[in-house]
Amino acid sequence: MSHIHDECGVFGIFANSKQDVASTAYYALFALQHRGQESAGIVVNDDGVFRTHKDVGLVNDVFSQEAMSRLGVGNMAVGHVRYSTTGTGLRENAQPIVVNHLKGNLALAHNGNLVNAYELRSELENSGSIFHTTSDSEVISYIITKERVRRRSIEEAVLAAMDRLQGAYSIVVMSPSKLIAARDPNGFRPLCFGIRDDGAYVVASESCALDAIGATYVREVEPGEMLTISADGVTSDISHCGIAKKTLCVFEFLYIARPDSVIGGKSVHEARRQAGKFLAEQYKIDADIVVGVPDSGIDAAFGYAEASGIPYGIGFIKNKYIGRTFIAPGQAAREDRVRIKLNVLTSAIKGKRVVLVDDSIVRGTTCQRIVKLLRDAGAKEVHMLSSAPPFLNPCYYGTDIDSRDNLIACHHSVDEIAKIIGADSLGYLDVNKVEWLTGEGTGFCKACFDGNYPTDLPTVTDKSRFERWERPISANPKFQNKEKKQ
Amino acid sequence: MSHIHDECGVFGIFANSKQDVASTAYYALFALQHRGQESAGIVVNDDGVFRTHKDVGLVNDVFSQEAMSRLGVGNMAVGHVRYSTTGTGLRENAQPIVVNHLKGNLALAHNGNLVNAYELRSELENSGSIFHTTSDSEVISYIITKERVRRRSIEEAVLAAMDRLQGAYSIVVMSPSKLIAARDPNGFRPLCFGIRDDGAYVVASESCALDAIGATYVREVEPGEMLTISADGVTSDISHCGIAKKTLCVFEFLYIARPDSVIGGKSVHEARRQAGKFLAEQYKIDADIVVGVPDSGIDAAFGYAEASGIPYGIGFIKNKYIGRTFIAPGQAAREDRVRIKLNVLTSAIKGKRVVLVDDSIVRGTTCQRIVKLLRDAGAKEVHMLSSAPPFLNPCYYGTDIDSRDNLIACHHSVDEIAKIIGADSLGYLDVNKVEWLTGEGTGFCKACFDGNYPTDLPTVTDKSRFERWERPISANPKFQNKEKKQ
Amino acid sequence: MSHIHDECGVFGIFANSKQDVASTAYYALFALQHRGQESAGIVVNDDGVFRTHKDVGLVNDVFSQEAMSRLGVGNMAVGHVRYSTTGTGLRENAQPIVVNHLKGNLALAHNGNLVNAYELRSELENSGSIFHTTSDSEVISYIITKERVRRRSIEEAVLAAMDRLQGAYSIVVMSPSKLIAARDPNGFRPLCFGIRDDGAYVVASESCALDAIGATYVREVEPGEMLTISADGVTSDISHCGIAKKTLCVFEFLYIARPDSVIGGKSVHEARRQAGKFLAEQYKIDADIVVGVPDSGIDAAFGYAEASGIPYGIGFIKNKYIGRTFIAPGQAAREDRVRIKLNVLTSAIKGKRVVLVDDSIVRGTTCQRIVKLLRDAGAKEVHMLSSAPPFLNPCYYGTDIDSRDNLIACHHSVDEIAKIIGADSLGYLDVNKVEWLTGEGTGFCKACFDGNYPTDLPTVTDKSRFERWERPISANPKFQNKEKKQ
Amino acid sequence: MSHIHDECGVFGIFANSKQDVASTAYYALFALQHRGQESAGIVVNDDGVFRTHKDVGLVNDVFSQEAMSRLGVGNMAVGHVRYSTTGTGLRENAQPIVVNHLKGNLALAHNGNLVNAYELRSELENSGSIFHTTSDSEVISYIITKERVRRRSIEEAVLAAMDRLQGAYSIVVMSPSKLIAARDPNGFRPLCFGIRDDGAYVVASESCALDAIGATYVREVEPGEMLTISADGVTSDISHCGIAKKTLCVFEFLYIARPDSVIGGKSVHEARRQAGKFLAEQYKIDADIVVGVPDSGIDAAFGYAEASGIPYGIGFIKNKYIGRTFIAPGQAAREDRVRIKLNVLTSAIKGKRVVLVDDSIVRGTTCQRIVKLLRDAGAKEVHMLSSAPPFLNPCYYGTDIDSRDNLIACHHSVDEIAKIIGADSLGYLDVNKVEWLTGEGTGFCKACFDGNYPTDLPTVTDKSRFERWERPISANPKFQNKEKKQ
Repeated sequence: MSHIHDECGVFGIFANSKQDVASTAYYALFALQHRGQESAGIVVNDDGVFRTHKDVGLVNDVFSQEAMSRLGVGNMAVGHVRYSTTGTGLRENAQPIVVNHLKGNLALAHNGNLVNAYELRSELENSGSIFHTTSDSEVISYIITKERVRRRSIEEAVLAAMDRLQGAYSIVVMSPSKLIAARDPNGFRPLCFGIRDDGAYVVASESCALDAIGATYVREVEPGEMLTISADGVTSDISHCGIAKKTLCVFEFLYIARPDSVIGGKSVHEARRQAGKFLAEQYKIDADIVVGVPDSGIDAAFGYAEASGIPYGIGFIKNKYIGRTFIAPGQAAREDRVRIKLNVLTSAIKGKRVVLVDDSIVRGTTCQRIVKLLRDAGAKEVHMLSSAPPFLNPCYYGTDIDSRDNLIACHHSVDEIAKIIGADSLGYLDVNKVEWLTGEGTGFCKACFDGNYPTDLPTVTDKSRFERWERPISANPKFQNKEKKQ
Repeated sequence: MSHIHDECGVFGIFANSKQDVASTAYYALFALQHRGQESAGIVVNDDGVFRTHKDVGLVNDVFSQEAMSRLGVGNMAVGHVRYSTTGTGLRENAQPIVVNHLKGNLALAHNGNLVNAYELRSELENSGSIFHTTSDSEVISYIITKERVRRRSIEEAVLAAMDRLQGAYSIVVMSPSKLIAARDPNGFRPLCFGIRDDGAYVVASESCALDAIGATYVREVEPGEMLTISADGVTSDISHCGIAKKTLCVFEFLYIARPDSVIGGKSVHEARRQAGKFLAEQYKIDADIVVGVPDSGIDAAFGYAEASGIPYGIGFIKNKYIGRTFIAPGQAAREDRVRIKLNVLTSAIKGKRVVLVDDSIVRGTTCQRIVKLLRDAGAKEVHMLSSAPPFLNPCYYGTDIDSRDNLIACHHSVDEIAKIIGADSLGYLDVNKVEWLTGEGTGFCKACFDGNYPTDLPTVTDKSRFERWERPISANPKFQNKEKKQ
Repeated sequence: MSHIHDECGVFGIFANSKQDVASTAYYALFALQHRGQESAGIVVNDDGVFRTHKDVGLVNDVFSQEAMSRLGVGNMAVGHVRYSTTGTGLRENAQPIVVNHLKGNLALAHNGNLVNAYELRSELENSGSIFHTTSDSEVISYIITKERVRRRSIEEAVLAAMDRLQGAYSIVVMSPSKLIAARDPNGFRPLCFGIRDDGAYVVASESCALDAIGATYVREVEPGEMLTISADGVTSDISHCGIAKKTLCVFEFLYIARPDSVIGGKSVHEARRQAGKFLAEQYKIDADIVVGVPDSGIDAAFGYAEASGIPYGIGFIKNKYIGRTFIAPGQAAREDRVRIKLNVLTSAIKGKRVVLVDDSIVRGTTCQRIVKLLRDAGAKEVHMLSSAPPFLNPCYYGTDIDSRDNLIACHHSVDEIAKIIGADSLGYLDVNKVEWLTGEGTGFCKACFDGNYPTDLPTVTDKSRFERWERPISANPKFQNKEKKQ
Repeated sequence: MSHIHDECGVFGIFANSKQDVASTAYYALFALQHRGQESAGIVVNDDGVFRTHKDVGLVNDVFSQEAMSRLGVGNMAVGHVRYSTTGTGLRENAQPIVVNHLKGNLALAHNGNLVNAYELRSELENSGSIFHTTSDSEVISYIITKERVRRRSIEEAVLAAMDRLQGAYSIVVMSPSKLIAARDPNGFRPLCFGIRDDGAYVVASESCALDAIGATYVREVEPGEMLTISADGVTSDISHCGIAKKTLCVFEFLYIARPDSVIGGKSVHEARRQAGKFLAEQYKIDADIVVGVPDSGIDAAFGYAEASGIPYGIGFIKNKYIGRTFIAPGQAAREDRVRIKLNVLTSAIKGKRVVLVDDSIVRGTTCQRIVKLLRDAGAKEVHMLSSAPPFLNPCYYGTDIDSRDNLIACHHSVDEIAKIIGADSLGYLDVNKVEWLTGEGTGFCKACFDGNYPTDLPTVTDKSRFERWERPISANPKFQNKEKKQ
């Protein structure tokens, strides 16, 4: 029932006429699917009437033709895709959250993780509030609603709520007549703003969603900024800007975001390519071919090849039907999931000395299997490179970085890890290079690598908070074996 | 999204060991299915851990084997079946409602309708509370939770909440260690208490649920009473008893409850049979056979036959597969639903003068078709009798009595109605006889017949309250054509 | 994968214009649902193009709005509901069977059981035919098709096939331009013919299906008769009539058919009532009330009361939601299915000497539980009467009468059975009265009671034939616990 | 209801002990999913008892945990994935086909298309055979079964059937004790043979399926060869080898097969890379970057870059969730499917002269959109290259090459097509190079390019044969918009 961290995608559109905003949101969420595969939801605003559809599942499964037609037309919509780190996918936790209220309905979609969620929730519960979910988003909804009843406008309420929220939040709030986008002062999670030819305004977690719906990327919503979109146009409130150091999650560039997205004007693909180039500077390897692990190791491998002069090659073919929750039949535990997903191009690998580039190493088990695949295909040498530095610390800002227990780099030296995964050598990106990935020497949160957390830490973790509510009888087989980093 | 009135069934069990309370709740809800076909839910309490399964649909559809096994074992459970009067069946509105709270979880199942729901909800919304549903049950949950944070125990919180709730409520509340059953001081909706051989205590809307699980009926929960069941046994609080006149809904006896149920020690079947006997006193008809409309007209027809001496006969065969949501194929509007459901036993009717007894007449359209069926089968005369008086007023206490617009008796005289439905004569039970159905001359709410409402009326109806939130795009075909009285 | 006997319902319509024949078939099948709950199917003939929908499940589940709209309009349709005696419900065995053939498509719906199915199938397999199902209906389709290729018309092919088929068959065959109904010379299974006001011709297993669609019963298709309906009208071929004694299954009157059906001009309800009257002649009992077991014991109980003068009473209330496949939750084996389905009206039974009438006694287990229900409700005496004689022999003509192993009457005397079921006395209808149920002293097959089989018996039973193909891994829980006589 | 051509995947396993062959088949089919997305099926052979599960849908959807457990263990299994070119996905057409027969059960999975299917089927229908499907596979099953009844063994029957079948067939046949794999003498469709460490023998359409289950590729089943695998080992019958020229479909190398597969010892990836190199020889272009259209244009683009010296670049990011049937919401026709699926890496393309490589051009509409994507991203020039020659002729051997009406190359010159798709230049692979893709100058069918059909052509196409059976009411929305080449 609980979840520790959300890694989510949000979207909002404000059109200047009643139209099929649900389909637009659908395509945007489909483009953001990589940010969350557990649940999806859309709320359409039809002259103040909110129609919602949300459920557990992929965008394509959740939104049937019938569901789309029931959402109908409107001039605004918000959407959300959600990922949770636990096995249980609760329908109740699906977003956006909708609040029916005398002062006006409100729909909220949120990406991030508060560090003071426990305190805020306790305070609310102690004043008699009842919660239906275990998500931070419901806490934020409450805080905004509490403020709403004593403020003149929804904007004022959101600003007042921002005074109380600590941690990571990129939120989209829809009221009967306004669409509001706001980002925490650190700017942990991305949130960008765009415009479509027909004048519709859109906000989304990543620019790839804008591309998918034919909108043009304008700029990021700034850390601490609140954008209000209404019939009167777009206004910006920057009263919370600058009150904290900008610390965008660097793992967005290294892993989370789609390579075709642009964050803060920087291409994610180029940042990963740059990581590969940095690796080539750090690790000069005598090899015949550079291959990347699909999909997220490809860009860095490309960069490594460019900088090193060693030819880039296609080393793996990925089963293109695996990109969704994959239910492995019961008895087949001995079947190797990595082998199901990836196959080696033997003709390209046989007899070669291979530089193998992946985006990161968490537990090491997947790396181990991939190295073995290359060995089985006849690779003479396998040199493993990770385009992220070693993970040494948990994340409290909405990324699913495992607790230290599961982080192989917390328990083993680089040489030990190389041995464990079966590589001839192993290299990680230098943590000091990380901030130069996009050409700028500042502005990232890289606490998972160096432990420098830019905020206070939670006093109580979500896990312990919600433990008392949980005693799973049996994990729901529908949500087992979901594709996740290992 | 809204619903005006709930007509629901509730159940709770407190066992003295960890066991399969989910199955017990399942069978009890199955026995209460006639009280609500829209959604069903069960919450199991496993040493303070609450596991919930609820969804739109019949009990048999909602609870798959997998769902049952996920509910697991426990020592307490609450269950609910729900009916709503609108076409939209919202998953969110399914009960029991579960509140996760620092002071302890809480599950609540409710049957009834508050008359001050608007005021309570407005007050809560104005203090910043957020609502996920449009149901009175969430209002009650809030009121209890608000009280809970400043009281020493859940019992005190429920009692304090009872001071604030006005109207009809029969509720079952489950805390981590207690099961509480409470009923409004008027006692509009039934709620009975029983015990099983193994010492488990149970509460249920009707005694038929006790029979289904092998429990023995002990007594009603009294109007205004709160029963608390815990490891220490059962305690009764009667501080709210007697502060209002007892006004049990008489329509429970006439239509809603199952004939095999016993309410307040009185058999529903016998009450209906008595209604038939009263009709025989009122209307002396020269006829050959008395037939009842299955299922709920049978008992009164039987009573009429007994008292009149005219032979009782089986006149209709009901398709036994129709007892569930029935989806009529699209183009077949001209097909007659009554004919699908009922067929006349021509051999029994042909050439006869028939006394036809039904439980009530609401819009008259169903009666019209049934009379025609008899005529087509060769009945010489058809004399229609209703074992309920004419409906003249809407109900605010949880029964789905249509607004005056749809009540045929509000717009036509008895003779006119007879003509409309095609009967040779028509008679209604005398409204003054109603209170004598169970042999006692008092204690019923019969406001739908005589307009004497025992409480203040709502200042704002739910319909208007929730109107702003609704603009249905298209009625969900899954919930169209549900079997309902017409 | 196998099934021993089919107990099915068939339907066919020939309209004189293109119309929504699918909906008509739907309503007819819904009325015939009691004849088969395992699968349902409809084939629409749209100017020679056949569109089919069939699946495992009840009529209401199989035919969604979408399925109906895909069936579309046409001028003919055939439909089928199917029951099988084994736990496995095979989608492949759903009917009607459709044959795509150069000489014209053909759809076939069949009720009955051949006694020479093994010989015919072996012969066909030995000539290289391949079978997709284990049903007799596919054998019949093959025989007709084999004849079709060397005959001038489909009628000739059906007649030639009738020369080869032995046993029970009531079939409806649809060719591109004709609808053919045929019945074996013994006339084991019913098949009636009707006409609708608009001139559409219909055939159905029972007249209740005609009533449901507003058609008028004309007459039975005679044993051995073949009716051909085409644009030229209706023609009858009686070349197979009279070549065998008419031996309609008397159990159709006693149990299978709906009481509102008329077979051979005789009311099923009246036949059952007559059975009750015969019982009253046989068994004079000193009792206070006569009650019937719902639904199929009601009519005979009524007849007993009429003839004996002992008052008829309503003794049981049946849960009206049980009339479909009922999935009992896993752990609840100790819960009593009979108690879930039936509840006693204690007020009517308490302290009474009860005559309890049921339609038949097969294994005795259900009776035992029902008697106990009455005892628990305070009945002073319980006298059990069965409106069918004791079952002593298996049926080979399409009725699911258990093998002798499971027939309690094969192993115990009447007194022993009374003791086993806990009754104070027990009586069966005299087997010699059976043929007088409808007022005529002849024309029934009652082999299950007296062992006088009107045909040769199968050399090989279906069970042994198909055994080699079956080794169920686990019974499909979806099909367990289906409501069946015990 | 019909389908013209099958493009399918087949699989068979013969293990030497009873084991979870169903899971093995599952993983193999998952690896072959690209060969057919319409339906999937597995038949397990458990000591002669066949258990089947097949349905419309992707492998992952068809085989639930429950379905897998019902398949159970066995020592043999056959599997099939199916693609059809029409909108209607008929459950009946799902394979493998299972024949229950006195001489022993038989399961058959087939990839290919017969050219004499019409003649064979007519002959069978004229002898009274009945067909349940419109597939060639049922024709083959019949022919084998007809032979089976007069031959001593299943092998003899298959060989005799091969005498009668003309056209393309790669089949896997399972009898109670043997697994047989056979390929037509031309060898149109691939079929390979492998062995697993534990001694299990496997056959599959492509070697990628062997990799997925940890089996080692041994060799192709030769054109005309029949392999029989039994407890006695593997025997090869080559009596049909050499009676026709080997003409493997070259489009398997160019498009159908997975790049990690090896066909006839040749790597598919290398063949596509070679196509790119040939293109580089043919078309010397002054450009800055070579990009391939994911997924199937990547390999050739890589080859072009290698041979030309122009840098290879990642130009597109493909949404990795699109690799399955994608249901576009209703109103969103104006949304561009290509844009949903592919996004341009603007940073890589902007201001560049781009060589764009795709695997083929059928209708030209997809190309047009992709060129536009590049232009919108700022490409200065776009030079389109197709790694297949122009399609000029339909395929009769099981590939879904559109009729000439839809083939853009049949109606326009290369220059016209360049203009239509908006490219600065356009080039196709020289048809004469095609046979050198794998380094050998012979042995391919390339009739779709050059019209040299290696067999007689069908006298009647399937389309016209089955037309009389079809009049779709409405295309099933579930199967609309399936991902297909355009």
